[in-house]
Amino acid sequence: MWKNELTTLLNINYPIIQAPMAGGPTTSELVAAVSNAGGFGMVGAGYMSPNQLRNQICEIRELTEKPFGINLFVPSKYTADPEKLRTATALLQPIMDELQVEEGPVLPTFERDLITFQEQVNIIIEEKVPICSFTFGIPSPQVVTKLKENSIVLIGTSTTVKEAVMIENAGLDVVVVQGAEAGGHRGTFHGQENDSLIGLMSLLPQTADAVTIPLIAAGGIMDGRGIMAAKCLGAIGVQMGTAFLVCEESGANSLHKNAIMEASEDHVVLTKAFSGKMARGLNNRLIEVIKQYEGVLPDYPLQNELTKAIRKSSAAIGTTAHMSLWSGQSPRLAKKLTVSELMNKIINEAKSLNQKL
Amino acid sequence: MWKNELTTLLNINYPIIQAPMAGGPTTSELVAAVSNAGGFGMVGAGYMSPNQLRNQICEIRELTEKPFGINLFVPSKYTADPEKLRTATALLQPIMDELQVEEGPVLPTFERDLITFQEQVNIIIEEKVPICSFTFGIPSPQVVTKLKENSIVLIGTSTTVKEAVMIENAGLDVVVVQGAEAGGHRGTFHGQENDSLIGLMSLLPQTADAVTIPLIAAGGIMDGRGIMAAKCLGAIGVQMGTAFLVCEESGANSLHKNAIMEASEDHVVLTKAFSGKMARGLNNRLIEVIKQYEGVLPDYPLQNELTKAIRKSSAAIGTTAHMSLWSGQSPRLAKKLTVSELMNKIINEAKSLNQKL
Repeated sequence: MWKNELTTLLNINYPIIQAPMAGGPTTSELVAAVSNAGGFGMVGAGYMSPNQLRNQICEIRELTEKPFGINLFVPSKYTADPEKLRTATALLQPIMDELQVEEGPVLPTFERDLITFQEQVNIIIEEKVPICSFTFGIPSPQVVTKLKENSIVLIGTSTTVKEAVMIENAGLDVVVVQGAEAGGHRGTFHGQENDSLIGLMSLLPQTADAVTIPLIAAGGIMDGRGIMAAKCLGAIGVQMGTAFLVCEESGANSLHKNAIMEASEDHVVLTKAFSGKMARGLNNRLIEVIKQYEGVLPDYPLQNELTKAIRKSSAAIGTTAHMSLWSGQSPRLAKKLTVSELMNKIINEAKSLNQKL
Repeated sequence: MWKNELTTLLNINYPIIQAPMAGGPTTSELVAAVSNAGGFGMVGAGYMSPNQLRNQICEIRELTEKPFGINLFVPSKYTADPEKLRTATALLQPIMDELQVEEGPVLPTFERDLITFQEQVNIIIEEKVPICSFTFGIPSPQVVTKLKENSIVLIGTSTTVKEAVMIENAGLDVVVVQGAEAGGHRGTFHGQENDSLIGLMSLLPQTADAVTIPLIAAGGIMDGRGIMAAKCLGAIGVQMGTAFLVCEESGANSLHKNAIMEASEDHVVLTKAFSGKMARGLNNRLIEVIKQYEGVLPDYPLQNELTKAIRKSSAAIGTTAHMSLWSGQSPRLAKKLTVSELMNKIINEAKSLNQKL
């Protein structure tokens, strides 16, 4: 029941992909453990410097001989609107004072982001990483061609049928279909984020009817039930974030892991507070404070930089009040396990469910 | 693969329930056709007078000997805020002028709604309708007891795990789990509508782990793929609205049916514009006009009464601009078929998918 086009393409035993959660969770231990267990580990390299990326690739190779992948954020244009920056800074100042944050933000620029992206792509080619996935857009035809010339399998991320079609048309090999259930940032890159919040029950079959490349389902999937359901709806693999985020090997802050373990599905909200881009996580004070100003925040990734020191400081003093607690809509299904225990559990669940159907 | 606790309880061949879409779609022809095809037809009686309800029950019994059910809206308290009513009336006046609507609204009261609900319950008992489902809340213990004394099977509607637990604790027999994908009104009755938009991929397994009564999955399900996926996630039946709404036997306006046939998943939005309560449907002019005033609209069902003549008039002159075009998030899966053709199609799809798994 596990072998398919995707397991062949990725050279893995089970079509279970660990979501590339940028910003800490995807330690080398996590990525290697998933690949060693027969799944596919991924590095969330969106916020990494080229050096950090190269070091992590080497580190993972010390821990596993199995394939793993890298996820990159495709840069998109933004402008630093001085008024929005002033508003956001003023909003955040009382929190910075309270947390005694003194570190000021170093604002990114689109030009700098483009250079970093190009450097990340070059490292992937140099290090012969076999699989590369993208979030927030489709890389340029030049980048796609260059990666494909180096036999690198390319995975896009879609939140609507149109985006999946665009990804197929751009020549990518596989598409991750991100349902509204998914934790972390919305991958939406075409159209409005608000119009792209489509549950997997709807999004998967509609996407399956519109594209021919293999689909990977992402959003709310935490166990064998979700894997089998995704299969019924037309996906041939799943990408799981929250389920792996709470694992022992994950680098997520333990406050974050514990908050998910104690949460219920109705505590998981959508917010732009942390980065300027819509993302799903557990509700907390920062989200509530920023809520009514979501329409006037600086563009991603500017807002992300503005809140960086606050998030860090909140974690350092041991409170979740101002941390980004990314989570999908299924926190009640989270289990504190090792990766190997989790993989065994979900594989057995899927097998036994398959027999019952 | 079809027989289970639910098919036994409802005395049907296939655990496929036609959603009780209030306000027109659930003609006697539709309800009877679904039941005659081995599924379970339901009357959306939420807006019906006791006489209308009694007449439709008799009419359906002329068309089928199979069981069918009735859905009622559980009244909840609201107050007529004069300022909100003034604001909404002022907002709607230009549209009323444009459409030459002269009919003024007859505002309902909670007391009157309670009496109607009680009368509807009495008719269900007198007419020995075997199954009754509820939306927007749980009926009082007195009503539950009275219906159960008459051996009527009771179905609640939940949008969160907590609501499903409340429904089970109130002694109802079955719970419809309404995912964020669902078209029409959100059934949310506990907590905030915004916190209760949970995709079925997340909501079903979390609910299945929390209650012991049978689950019916609702939201975005239009074909055999959705039925099998719902089964994997812990439901033993499905409730389908949009799929039946576009059927030949449905009483939905043909403008509404055609709009769904032409829509894509990202045209389906959430709005309070039509009724004051959150509902999902195709975007149009009325939704856009009211959008920024959603926070100050009169409570449901007051706003529903305020927009009634506008919706009617919009349909009469043949434009969808001001109609409520309820739809789930899977319009691309809609097929214009007869009920019997649709039932055959989805049953065959589910069977063939089952063999492939």
